[in-house]
Amino acid sequence: MTSNRKPRQARRTITCYDVAQRAGVSQSSVSRSFRADGVVARATRVRVLAAAAELGYQPNAFAQGLITKRSNLVAIILAKITNLTYPEMLANLTDKLSQRGMRALLFTLDSNAVPTDVLEQVWRFRVDGAIAIAQLTPDQIDAFADHDTPLVLYNRISDRPVGSVCCDSIRGEAMLVDGLLAAGHRRIGIIAGLEDSHVGTERLEAALGRLKAAGYPVAAVARGNYDYASGRDALRALMAEAGTLDAVVCANDLMAIGAIDAARDMGLRVPDDLSVVGFDGVGAADWTGYRLTTIRQPVEHMVSATVSMLFEHISDPDHPAERRLFMGEFVRGGSARIA
Amino acid sequence: MTSNRKPRQARRTITCYDVAQRAGVSQSSVSRSFRADGVVARATRVRVLAAAAELGYQPNAFAQGLITKRSNLVAIILAKITNLTYPEMLANLTDKLSQRGMRALLFTLDSNAVPTDVLEQVWRFRVDGAIAIAQLTPDQIDAFADHDTPLVLYNRISDRPVGSVCCDSIRGEAMLVDGLLAAGHRRIGIIAGLEDSHVGTERLEAALGRLKAAGYPVAAVARGNYDYASGRDALRALMAEAGTLDAVVCANDLMAIGAIDAARDMGLRVPDDLSVVGFDGVGAADWTGYRLTTIRQPVEHMVSATVSMLFEHISDPDHPAERRLFMGEFVRGGSARIA
Repeated sequence: MTSNRKPRQARRTITCYDVAQRAGVSQSSVSRSFRADGVVARATRVRVLAAAAELGYQPNAFAQGLITKRSNLVAIILAKITNLTYPEMLANLTDKLSQRGMRALLFTLDSNAVPTDVLEQVWRFRVDGAIAIAQLTPDQIDAFADHDTPLVLYNRISDRPVGSVCCDSIRGEAMLVDGLLAAGHRRIGIIAGLEDSHVGTERLEAALGRLKAAGYPVAAVARGNYDYASGRDALRALMAEAGTLDAVVCANDLMAIGAIDAARDMGLRVPDDLSVVGFDGVGAADWTGYRLTTIRQPVEHMVSATVSMLFEHISDPDHPAERRLFMGEFVRGGSARIA
Repeated sequence: MTSNRKPRQARRTITCYDVAQRAGVSQSSVSRSFRADGVVARATRVRVLAAAAELGYQPNAFAQGLITKRSNLVAIILAKITNLTYPEMLANLTDKLSQRGMRALLFTLDSNAVPTDVLEQVWRFRVDGAIAIAQLTPDQIDAFADHDTPLVLYNRISDRPVGSVCCDSIRGEAMLVDGLLAAGHRRIGIIAGLEDSHVGTERLEAALGRLKAAGYPVAAVARGNYDYASGRDALRALMAEAGTLDAVVCANDLMAIGAIDAARDMGLRVPDDLSVVGFDGVGAADWTGYRLTTIRQPVEHMVSATVSMLFEHISDPDHPAERRLFMGEFVRGGSARIA
């Protein structure tokens, strides 16, 4: 293998000083020229950027971070990516952050709970803010405030004063359950999510409450962990417990897809023999093999709101905590008999 | 809303100096105590860590980065996450990096090609290394060497001297095509990937070559962009062009799933009327609605190899570039008539 790269030893790191010399300005003018918020004459900035380009100089983000007290890093704390909405959300999030000159520092977690050593890492990198798609304890949320690190929760809420952006699970479940009841379904089972998840609990309680209020209490409940296999297993458990069912309300799309496959394996036609509804509106929900009746989360708008909210807190530490609740879109699909 | 957090103005940042005072050691001993590679007496380190814990001190990753010339950041440059193997890969990658005390700085791209301003950002953060799951030009690859930034390509190769970790597309396609031919398939179509993708080109050429060598040249070729809808469209285009087909070889699982749904919509039974094979071994390939015949990439092993290789280059800049090629696992599935 050959290489035409310059020999490593022959090069010297180009510094801010070299650029200042070449441009005939002070080092602090160079530094200010490279900061979006730096106050510097337009002509000076032009001269500095030209000199930097000639010399091949790039400002050091760390050195800048020490001066400006801004790292331009945002921690993304993400419970392990089993949920199929995450790829879309993550790509959106990094796009929106980079439009504001920020980079995503990614922390993925094995569980929904956040281990303490992950937060130690977050503090060490002096991130400008954090977005949590994972369950933080009240103490952990307070720790963000103690470290002056703005935090926004995504699809989670807390009793602590912290910003959050959510899709309205309660109204979403109400639309689905009302639709099933209006179409004549009476024996309805639920495949719920994990007990330690806010979204899971909220969706379960919303569906249970709606059924009870209508005078048709739930026929059976099973739990899954949001993945395909757990949806399949839960459908079998539900049928074993309830004997027969008209419809199954699933806490997310992936479990609904598993439930549909399990029902078909049992010889049931979906939706003729069994209606199945999901939640999220993931890509696979649209596949012609499933065509899920579901609630689609407005992921792009939710991500925009999350990033906007985080920047409000970064630029004004006294900005009040706010909850933004987005309505999901009812997707009729073809997996449920709904008029 | 109430808050029990400490008033912001009353707190002062605890510095390295405070810890040195409390522990009765020098500031450089404090600094060395917090570095994994720092040479310091065991008793000193214990005293420093105890003092730091009492004071609530956390070392500043930026200040450490300026001293050690290590940022502990690894850039992950990822073409937009439409491929369903990415969530698994990304979670594995951040796990493996954090086991070594490194954090993933995420750059997602709209296209397979890497815009120059993304690389400017990579240099600015003085990352210790980079992993590219996107197509870099030879000049861009040389730029990493010029910036002394070790780079490993994931499922991509280059003519430039750079490390890479790949799944063997050529042998994988050979296994699939040989299996189809041995089972008597003769009119075989191909749904290829994008022309600008290394993996796409390699898989297409491998399948074409194998068919030609066996004396049954390809019946028709259509292209997709790796997503579900493009697989569905490509299957329709193939059937329109070829009239009838025995089998379709798809460049990835997601397009194979789209092709299966399109075939079913046309009244074809899979695999009785049409065999469909994929590549990757994504989660949905196992769903009972599809049970894809495919090649499963050993993602976890490939990610481990990628991270190991990157660290070899970080710790020894003169480490030679290496290619590691992993064999995929043949998954018999149920979407193809293969003995």
